[in-house]
Amino acid sequence: MEHLYEKLSDYGKSGIYPCHMPGHKRQGWGRLPGEWYSVDITEIEGFDNLHHPEGILRELQREAARLYGAEESFYLVNGSTCGILAAVSCAVSFGGHILMARNCHKSAYHAVYLRQLKPRYLYPDYLEEYGILEAVTPEQVRRGLEQEPKAEAVLVVSPTYEGRMADISGIARIVHERGIPLIVDEAHGAHLGLGKGFPENSCQAGADLVIHSVHKTLPALTQTALLHVNGKLADRHRLRKFLQIYQTSSPSYPLMASIDNALEYVDLYGKDAFARFKGLYGQMMGRLSGCRQLKFLPKDNGKQDIGKLLVSVKQTEINGKQLYDRLLLEYHIQTEMAGGDYVLAMFTINDKKETYEHMTEALLDIDRRLASGDLAVEGETGTKGDGIFPFWFSTGKGGIPLAEAWEGEAEDVTLGESVGRYAAEFVSLYPPGAPLLVPGEQITGEFCRGIRESLEKGLTVQGIVQKGDGLTPGEKILIRVIKDKKRLRKLPQDGKNIRANNNIKEKEAE
Amino acid sequence: MEHLYEKLSDYGKSGIYPCHMPGHKRQGWGRLPGEWYSVDITEIEGFDNLHHPEGILRELQREAARLYGAEESFYLVNGSTCGILAAVSCAVSFGGHILMARNCHKSAYHAVYLRQLKPRYLYPDYLEEYGILEAVTPEQVRRGLEQEPKAEAVLVVSPTYEGRMADISGIARIVHERGIPLIVDEAHGAHLGLGKGFPENSCQAGADLVIHSVHKTLPALTQTALLHVNGKLADRHRLRKFLQIYQTSSPSYPLMASIDNALEYVDLYGKDAFARFKGLYGQMMGRLSGCRQLKFLPKDNGKQDIGKLLVSVKQTEINGKQLYDRLLLEYHIQTEMAGGDYVLAMFTINDKKETYEHMTEALLDIDRRLASGDLAVEGETGTKGDGIFPFWFSTGKGGIPLAEAWEGEAEDVTLGESVGRYAAEFVSLYPPGAPLLVPGEQITGEFCRGIRESLEKGLTVQGIVQKGDGLTPGEKILIRVIKDKKRLRKLPQDGKNIRANNNIKEKEAE
Repeated sequence: MEHLYEKLSDYGKSGIYPCHMPGHKRQGWGRLPGEWYSVDITEIEGFDNLHHPEGILRELQREAARLYGAEESFYLVNGSTCGILAAVSCAVSFGGHILMARNCHKSAYHAVYLRQLKPRYLYPDYLEEYGILEAVTPEQVRRGLEQEPKAEAVLVVSPTYEGRMADISGIARIVHERGIPLIVDEAHGAHLGLGKGFPENSCQAGADLVIHSVHKTLPALTQTALLHVNGKLADRHRLRKFLQIYQTSSPSYPLMASIDNALEYVDLYGKDAFARFKGLYGQMMGRLSGCRQLKFLPKDNGKQDIGKLLVSVKQTEINGKQLYDRLLLEYHIQTEMAGGDYVLAMFTINDKKETYEHMTEALLDIDRRLASGDLAVEGETGTKGDGIFPFWFSTGKGGIPLAEAWEGEAEDVTLGESVGRYAAEFVSLYPPGAPLLVPGEQITGEFCRGIRESLEKGLTVQGIVQKGDGLTPGEKILIRVIKDKKRLRKLPQDGKNIRANNNIKEKEAE
Repeated sequence: MEHLYEKLSDYGKSGIYPCHMPGHKRQGWGRLPGEWYSVDITEIEGFDNLHHPEGILRELQREAARLYGAEESFYLVNGSTCGILAAVSCAVSFGGHILMARNCHKSAYHAVYLRQLKPRYLYPDYLEEYGILEAVTPEQVRRGLEQEPKAEAVLVVSPTYEGRMADISGIARIVHERGIPLIVDEAHGAHLGLGKGFPENSCQAGADLVIHSVHKTLPALTQTALLHVNGKLADRHRLRKFLQIYQTSSPSYPLMASIDNALEYVDLYGKDAFARFKGLYGQMMGRLSGCRQLKFLPKDNGKQDIGKLLVSVKQTEINGKQLYDRLLLEYHIQTEMAGGDYVLAMFTINDKKETYEHMTEALLDIDRRLASGDLAVEGETGTKGDGIFPFWFSTGKGGIPLAEAWEGEAEDVTLGESVGRYAAEFVSLYPPGAPLLVPGEQITGEFCRGIRESLEKGLTVQGIVQKGDGLTPGEKILIRVIKDKKRLRKLPQDGKNIRANNNIKEKEAE
């Protein structure tokens, strides 16, 4: 089996004069290591073409398919983002209907926008104890398809950003009864199905299109991903077309080499690496079970991915951001994110034993300090709220089609003034950036309270404008809304902007 | 000025425990150097967010704008591809009209498809002496705008892949008279306007949106690019929206660091580096002027970029592919591409003196061998033709809108059967991959002869299927055409595929 990095490295030493792109001519300068440049080539003789693979890249993609149990796999260099855009564009015709989980990554909404799709959302349950969302269930999918029989595809996220796993086999059966494809955004599950004791991945569970961020949970470089396709429900010719559209015509060979390198690692050492991972993780969880203030996910019910550790402070005096800051500043642990009442940490096969031990000691220490009440820092006011409930549950949910709303004329109003208006922008907590509010959805008072509470808890809200320094008065938070819902700009059919009085049909909430 | 690589490198040494993405946890394995991983992070504390820059990335983008004389610049990690998609999507409303050069990169056609635009093409002149296309002229743009007064933007390429430069100042004046923006795909001109004796870049010349592939002609890593915006004709809010859509939400920091590194190089040493580049290039051209068989572009008329060296074999017994092969196999020079009757080589500030000297010696030697008739290799039959004329000149040019044609039902027919039918796929010579045939265009006999001749000359044609080994009989070359032009599938308005008898309106050729 020929590997890409080796081939690049050999070529770099070949002494062939480079009268072609890239402009660095394999010579580095300055701060970046020379090795970055010596292997960075373009589609020259012998190095195949990602968009029309016939040589080494075709072989490597076949190897990826074998590893994951997929029929066909594609290397991606524009992240899972381009995989989701391509999968949705492929599976649903322009202007068609899609049934999708409401907790999808923003790229899924971008696909809806670009292709002017009509989405019906699946609203996952709220796991109140931890303040996070569940994955969607087969039963929710079944009901969704009954309500949206015109759906041309179903899109779900599993594992979620917080590690919740869906029953993909069960969902696939239901979706396939309708003769339509199931797309799984498994960006956070590239490690699944590769080691003993880990749940199967969505290819193995019967999904048609599966997207994996290899950089998220395997040792590949950031921005790399895979798209797998199975069965006959997804048109592969169409899929290739959209992959060509959403990805650069000058893909980075080092990025592709890092996918190869990560998969080779898994292939050669995966068995031991995953066993070690599971072992170290189990030891950590065993010791953490002694905590009295902090609570943890996963519990061992098969619904939570062990790549994630969710530390809940819901029953303590501090909030998520405060725990996040403590871990970073006092214990030198950079975690993935702070939620309203939790912190999310990530573990992979590449974590050292020391990291598990250090995290364990840190959390045990914080738990003791919380119990004895000496964790608070002078001058800091930790805002505790009711927990950041999924406040998009309370938005109007429908109203105006996304594509129309995001193209329409908009204005900035204060949060207070926005109640009852229709959103013109995505609003999200970052990370993870899944939209809380989608253009075209109606804004409620509950939503506004949720945004204010999130800001008070120190979370990052994207899609709003904060004027001034303070958070009060509320007037300083601006949100973009559709200018006049009675005079919406209809999507032009002939290049002109047609203004018309539209009847805004409020869609029934589920 | 803080630089990204340094900051990444310092962070890598900080000893902070990485309980977050990416999954490699800054540790390499196997073939790739450890330095690739130690600096590969994600949007953690202090490292800003490309999609909402407020820290170091905002500063670096400002620095890029200063260097190029732009008002605002954006780092791109999905190549010029995403810059062109975003610029066109921003400047033209959905379904709107655009005036664009017919020799645009395929990403421009992809934007037309995604946004269902109505393009009118500017057909550049054919430089028969060398068998390449010119850049478009101000006069062509003026006439184009008269014929398409509804155009919402103009898109041109300069320099072209072969190095032909347009009069951007002149074009900008004409375009701005109409109050619409000028987009310049300057992917091959990221080095312009930075050194004495080099032409100004399109920002300096008055364009509104300018795309630069920094990896093509400056020392940055493959897949990196810049998008610049000037003036008020392009809505920057809209531009950001599309950049978020077409680029991964997990951009690679090393790629971004390589943009910073390349621009820092230009800023610190550009003056000397460009002077040296021009000097070495001039020496080479001086010596090559002694050639009697080979002909060269540039001539010093300001219309050709010296980053390219076009070697024409039109007046010799060999064709472009044969020269390309000779240079590679006998002289160990990898050039950028072979055309029908020429070879294209690229030079940048990073080329060593030795490379110029070696190329000079090689070409002088080949010229001598061509003169004495001892270049031919036994058993090789070099097909010479009339030259690969721009045979898309002979396609029907219009017919069916691209978006409709690319979504419609298609079938594969032989090249012979395809005459008079409407294309369902892009067909291009690779490199560079600019489409010779666009979905919806009518296929002519001249086009088919051009394709056959290109194949006989050993060029790579994308978008066709070759069955069997030989090139004759012609029946073995398949091309995808619209199944029944009388029964075209109209773009669905309500998610259903509507079949209707469409009147195919044949558009007048210019």
